[in-house]
Amino acid sequence: MRATPDTIPDILQDYKRIRARTERICAPLRAEDHVPQPVIDVSPPKWHMAHTTWFFETFILKKFLLGYKPFHHLYNYIFNSYYESIGDRVLRENRGFLSRPTVEEILDYRAYVDEQMEELVDCLLPEQEAEFMKFFTIGLQHEQQHQELLITDIKYILGHNPLRPEYEKGHLAVEVDTEYTIPEAVYLPVKGGLHTIGYIGESFAWDNEKPAHQVYINDFKIQNRLVTNAEYMKFMYDGGYHNFRYWLSEAWGLVEAEKWEAPMYWQRIDGEWLQYTLHGLQYIDPNAPVTHISFFEADAYASWAGKRLLTEAEWEIAVQQYKPKLSMQAFADAEIYQPQPLDVKADYATTCHQLMGDVWEWTYSGYFPYPGYKREEGALGEYNGKFMINQMVMRGGSCATPMDHIRPTYRNFFPADKKWQFTGIRLAE
Amino acid sequence: MRATPDTIPDILQDYKRIRARTERICAPLRAEDHVPQPVIDVSPPKWHMAHTTWFFETFILKKFLLGYKPFHHLYNYIFNSYYESIGDRVLRENRGFLSRPTVEEILDYRAYVDEQMEELVDCLLPEQEAEFMKFFTIGLQHEQQHQELLITDIKYILGHNPLRPEYEKGHLAVEVDTEYTIPEAVYLPVKGGLHTIGYIGESFAWDNEKPAHQVYINDFKIQNRLVTNAEYMKFMYDGGYHNFRYWLSEAWGLVEAEKWEAPMYWQRIDGEWLQYTLHGLQYIDPNAPVTHISFFEADAYASWAGKRLLTEAEWEIAVQQYKPKLSMQAFADAEIYQPQPLDVKADYATTCHQLMGDVWEWTYSGYFPYPGYKREEGALGEYNGKFMINQMVMRGGSCATPMDHIRPTYRNFFPADKKWQFTGIRLAE
Amino acid sequence: MRATPDTIPDILQDYKRIRARTERICAPLRAEDHVPQPVIDVSPPKWHMAHTTWFFETFILKKFLLGYKPFHHLYNYIFNSYYESIGDRVLRENRGFLSRPTVEEILDYRAYVDEQMEELVDCLLPEQEAEFMKFFTIGLQHEQQHQELLITDIKYILGHNPLRPEYEKGHLAVEVDTEYTIPEAVYLPVKGGLHTIGYIGESFAWDNEKPAHQVYINDFKIQNRLVTNAEYMKFMYDGGYHNFRYWLSEAWGLVEAEKWEAPMYWQRIDGEWLQYTLHGLQYIDPNAPVTHISFFEADAYASWAGKRLLTEAEWEIAVQQYKPKLSMQAFADAEIYQPQPLDVKADYATTCHQLMGDVWEWTYSGYFPYPGYKREEGALGEYNGKFMINQMVMRGGSCATPMDHIRPTYRNFFPADKKWQFTGIRLAE
Amino acid sequence: MRATPDTIPDILQDYKRIRARTERICAPLRAEDHVPQPVIDVSPPKWHMAHTTWFFETFILKKFLLGYKPFHHLYNYIFNSYYESIGDRVLRENRGFLSRPTVEEILDYRAYVDEQMEELVDCLLPEQEAEFMKFFTIGLQHEQQHQELLITDIKYILGHNPLRPEYEKGHLAVEVDTEYTIPEAVYLPVKGGLHTIGYIGESFAWDNEKPAHQVYINDFKIQNRLVTNAEYMKFMYDGGYHNFRYWLSEAWGLVEAEKWEAPMYWQRIDGEWLQYTLHGLQYIDPNAPVTHISFFEADAYASWAGKRLLTEAEWEIAVQQYKPKLSMQAFADAEIYQPQPLDVKADYATTCHQLMGDVWEWTYSGYFPYPGYKREEGALGEYNGKFMINQMVMRGGSCATPMDHIRPTYRNFFPADKKWQFTGIRLAE
Repeated sequence: MRATPDTIPDILQDYKRIRARTERICAPLRAEDHVPQPVIDVSPPKWHMAHTTWFFETFILKKFLLGYKPFHHLYNYIFNSYYESIGDRVLRENRGFLSRPTVEEILDYRAYVDEQMEELVDCLLPEQEAEFMKFFTIGLQHEQQHQELLITDIKYILGHNPLRPEYEKGHLAVEVDTEYTIPEAVYLPVKGGLHTIGYIGESFAWDNEKPAHQVYINDFKIQNRLVTNAEYMKFMYDGGYHNFRYWLSEAWGLVEAEKWEAPMYWQRIDGEWLQYTLHGLQYIDPNAPVTHISFFEADAYASWAGKRLLTEAEWEIAVQQYKPKLSMQAFADAEIYQPQPLDVKADYATTCHQLMGDVWEWTYSGYFPYPGYKREEGALGEYNGKFMINQMVMRGGSCATPMDHIRPTYRNFFPADKKWQFTGIRLAE
Repeated sequence: MRATPDTIPDILQDYKRIRARTERICAPLRAEDHVPQPVIDVSPPKWHMAHTTWFFETFILKKFLLGYKPFHHLYNYIFNSYYESIGDRVLRENRGFLSRPTVEEILDYRAYVDEQMEELVDCLLPEQEAEFMKFFTIGLQHEQQHQELLITDIKYILGHNPLRPEYEKGHLAVEVDTEYTIPEAVYLPVKGGLHTIGYIGESFAWDNEKPAHQVYINDFKIQNRLVTNAEYMKFMYDGGYHNFRYWLSEAWGLVEAEKWEAPMYWQRIDGEWLQYTLHGLQYIDPNAPVTHISFFEADAYASWAGKRLLTEAEWEIAVQQYKPKLSMQAFADAEIYQPQPLDVKADYATTCHQLMGDVWEWTYSGYFPYPGYKREEGALGEYNGKFMINQMVMRGGSCATPMDHIRPTYRNFFPADKKWQFTGIRLAE
Repeated sequence: MRATPDTIPDILQDYKRIRARTERICAPLRAEDHVPQPVIDVSPPKWHMAHTTWFFETFILKKFLLGYKPFHHLYNYIFNSYYESIGDRVLRENRGFLSRPTVEEILDYRAYVDEQMEELVDCLLPEQEAEFMKFFTIGLQHEQQHQELLITDIKYILGHNPLRPEYEKGHLAVEVDTEYTIPEAVYLPVKGGLHTIGYIGESFAWDNEKPAHQVYINDFKIQNRLVTNAEYMKFMYDGGYHNFRYWLSEAWGLVEAEKWEAPMYWQRIDGEWLQYTLHGLQYIDPNAPVTHISFFEADAYASWAGKRLLTEAEWEIAVQQYKPKLSMQAFADAEIYQPQPLDVKADYATTCHQLMGDVWEWTYSGYFPYPGYKREEGALGEYNGKFMINQMVMRGGSCATPMDHIRPTYRNFFPADKKWQFTGIRLAE
Repeated sequence: MRATPDTIPDILQDYKRIRARTERICAPLRAEDHVPQPVIDVSPPKWHMAHTTWFFETFILKKFLLGYKPFHHLYNYIFNSYYESIGDRVLRENRGFLSRPTVEEILDYRAYVDEQMEELVDCLLPEQEAEFMKFFTIGLQHEQQHQELLITDIKYILGHNPLRPEYEKGHLAVEVDTEYTIPEAVYLPVKGGLHTIGYIGESFAWDNEKPAHQVYINDFKIQNRLVTNAEYMKFMYDGGYHNFRYWLSEAWGLVEAEKWEAPMYWQRIDGEWLQYTLHGLQYIDPNAPVTHISFFEADAYASWAGKRLLTEAEWEIAVQQYKPKLSMQAFADAEIYQPQPLDVKADYATTCHQLMGDVWEWTYSGYFPYPGYKREEGALGEYNGKFMINQMVMRGGSCATPMDHIRPTYRNFFPADKKWQFTGIRLAE
């Protein structure tokens, strides 16, 4: 997409839509909810709101808008996340210590930057357009990534509060049918051989999805759906968390030291398992996909089940073959304006399904550069490449991912012990 | 003081005055300021507001008011500070992770408890009065202690924010006269021999001030005023922070590891020293007492100056002899309602002065039980006695201490490395 | 290899040769050198001597020798490394706290087990042979792995001692020619396409080298030799350790926190770089391969040089194509009996060389299971599979690897920040 | 004591006797026992042997012996403990990583320094004598302090080894009479009022015992003997380690985090309590004083018993009044040459006893300067004064203290959580 007199209105529409969604996600919060950073991974919601704005200010307004006056001379220090090229910044672990700027001041910051962005779009010179569009698109994609993090971080902040508050009044909880049991999973064949994976096309994709390249895989079989809560409970009741045999060595150290015994957000009350959802504490839906588990748990479950996880190449090739539809439940999308269930739901389809838009599926692939990978030049080169170590690839997008942010080649990545994203398990054999 | 039909209105007046002052201290804050816990020592302001309320609920309403219905069944878990006898609680280091209850909910909690307290006072049975008055008095003293902590904790939260916001608009900053230099300190004689220290009387005093008992001290001389910022800067410019000779071994380890080089809140900007005060960044008043220094720094300064700190017995005996007036600057007092300087001020008096109400004076006395000390029974026994190890006694009260909370026998105590209270230095020889 | 009446004498010969070499490696040590564990990765030499013995005792003697009486009932607790299936054990981080058993007692333990092993081999039943040979072979391979660790751990213990003692008197130091400069590296073509990697054959290979499987790679070019000390110094003098641009994000955190500035064992004395070798401190040979660098440093060097590291598949395919000879310098080999240089040497060959037996070459491949990988059953299943996370693959073997332990398919693995092995850099483009 | 032609032979005799005793204490050790530092408090035995030698080299030979050539130029770096004035040194926590110099080299170092000391004494100039004697005496006292630490550090190293080896063959174990029960303790009156404590006299005493000064104490009663193992077990069986009420707040944190449940070296085997002694594991003597407990445990025991610990002034005044004899069991003394029990023994005397030479008695007094205290000039000023914070005073000397190192005014000091010295409990009321 290139900005032309015709496309400009469109891109402003996109800009407004995406920027508005960020504020919509934060709308149900109280000012106090915007402050804590209960673990280093979880950033304060107002920080997300400001950091995404700082991104436009830093990479676009300061570069393209002549005479642009930054909103506040210290915001670059406060809201730079990890760009060494952009200078000093608040240490990541200290984000939760900052009560100021307030939410109100940050909303003013957003309004100011939005206004200046509109002004810039109006007066953009033709020779700036190509470069502008590159940063502009990345700015929007970046904000969408933070929308997903906003949802998972809000869930963490509220879900670890002893009061277990719900995120927003008026949503309908997921209806749970504890009587019915979903049919046994089946394993569907995927044809091996030489395949091409990675992004091909003209739309946006991150540098880490490129270049497209050939890989050879063996024939294998893929589970037609995600592992359910009921299935995961079997693993738990079979002593899964107490038997080193299923666990990687580093994982077992954590299981013992931190006394893992269930997915994040599960808690046992009077002998019954409940889970915190954005609706508050709920009974566990036996047929819904298990979520909020680490790679370590996904791998241990697979060992226990006598199966294995897929590699990212296998996953992408299976998607090429089965052409799944996107799950329609993604709640961070436009639909967030309508009260609806804020959690991953059971899905009773019979073909290969739940591949995209339910939970991120842990793969047994490290997050490394594709053959021929080139980092972006300049500060954007810090976006993806510098994290290519000690992280595992997840595929498929989750119910918290913006719908138009999901695609088959998308590579998400997290350390193997992280659980606070909507993550899940799909098996292969 | 015992509650009688006559005293009851008085005690309610006290109660209302003290409770209102807590809320007055918090009034200038934004909701976001109520949340962070940037270091373990500093509690979120709303936590102080709720915890002092929980104290009345737990130790008075639940005991004395028939049929009392707690405001929320989880608040005991959330707002119990350290009373093992009262049950489980949020770990101290996790207070800053709790966005809920909100400030508004906590103000509702305060209103509810206040109302129930009034009701209780109305219907108190004569046989309850003695016991009631004991807890009631402690509840108020406890809240006054937290008022001082509120001020120092707010100062920490705002003063460590990169924006260095001021606490409240409209206060006059301390007027700084950088031309004038206060006269050299003189050392005034204190008569040694057998003296009695500790609390004697019928008013309130903490258990740790009792019993009064005899101590023998040698004749000594006491500095007639506090060490000033200008004097402390001489120590700094003489390499005080870079010479192990002045420091206790444990202190030197911290100086090196944490790169200490000035009191807390001082920062050098363009070659000039400024300090964060509740009015924002200010030039340093050379004649004002140095404050926000640890025991370790006070002791190192004394070594450098060829003097020493007092013991707590010496300090109390000097006060008996010189009968100092309370400094009238205490800003956490009723005067908080009037705009006034929110920091310790220079004082140009010529007799022995600044002993009470300016800064807490570090003594070279460990916080240990007085001979014959008895802990309170029950949960209140956890109030003071269990902290009698690895802490140093401070005397005199500070500009942040409520005026009617300052008395010559008062023993405050903190670990030797803490700096965030309004602490200062007085020398002896 | 299967034990038959004919092979038995051979296997005992192997056994004796390998067991003797362990003791030969330790022979120059003083008893005191056998005790410390200066970092968690480095085990005390006597621990290696006992643990390799425990391996034979636990997996062979206890299983195959009727009425076998363990040498000491507590040695299983003391010398089990990480086998959860075998029971409790001394925590890894506490190995250096154990002065007992003494070296002498451990040599007795070795002699006892060796004697029992001989007895067992004598009386082995035909139906035991297959199973016996499997464990026996692994026991010897295991001991060879520990021989390499012995050398690198001894180097660490001696090389971090302020006295920088040499390992053994009488060895000739590497001759360093600081005048001569090796020719520029050239990049040799490797043909891409579908290739098979992984172990095929009847000899021993670890489970993690199997199964052999097809991979597709692009054409690429491989550096004909290893990166030299002189080249690495250019990176250093060009500010390589002070420019975040070359480093992975996690690496940069370490570089700054731990103030990395050169390979391990390098130190600057009077403006001159020296390195600790097993001969003591030596001037750095500009033409020798740089060694004792982490994956992070290898990757940063490659970024600085505008090149990249190989993947393990690329490396193995290049070896198939260029069929390099094993470097003859491996000092942990039989040659250890002859005084010779105990370090990696410069090599002036002009074809693709130094691929095997000089330094382990870091690849940009995570240590993960090969497609179709199956863990061993039982305790041996803990040998490799459970470490397949957060480690990078190294290929080629080093000058410290026993010669008959090096093969093209061998996968070694270490976390990306480790430096104490003989590791090095080969680039690709 | 001043060196004169007559005293010189005597001082050499003292020197030889004390130096020989250090080596005698180490004689039963294996070379390997000399290396570990299992916790930061415990130094490797060979380090003690070298450090005490370094003390004579640094403070005497380098100053008084013209042309003295240090034994090794790096030993100052390796064996300086904490003297900032003497320059850089190996970090305390790294002492256990040093296998070199070996025990043999250190014995050579000792012999070299001893020889040079004799030479110096021969040629000492009259005008050097006073200064020399001061350092010489401190050097010997210093070595005696390390003799006690040697014993407790050896006990730690051997006693935490899973093999629980005994220190020396041939000693008789303490005979334990589990049938007999020692009579109930009685509380003997001590007369209060004004008393003088601190060292007065011409012999040696540390700076921290001076100046003698007056203190006022109340009348009190002192337990006539030490608390026994049987009594302490009652505390344990009454849930002492599981009831926060008896513990200081900081103590309770440790009890819970580290799961304290008995004195150090106690372990329960098959339901029976044993303790590691230098004879190996032994049944616990119910009548012997409990030992290896922290201040925190002593204080908790006192709370449980409804009593309290003494202050150091009370202790010293009680000794003035009761004039106890030194226990004759001190095993680090000359008697170490004879096989004898290496542990604190039951003592059935009926007067006030066990005050000196059994176990160090924890007092509820912080280790602070006496009124009028002056630190030594120069490096020796670092000996005592810089540790006067966050430590508690212990009095009386233990069975591991050299006999001629025990005196009523002696102030030993350790942090409140330390247990590895021979410490015990005496109560007051």
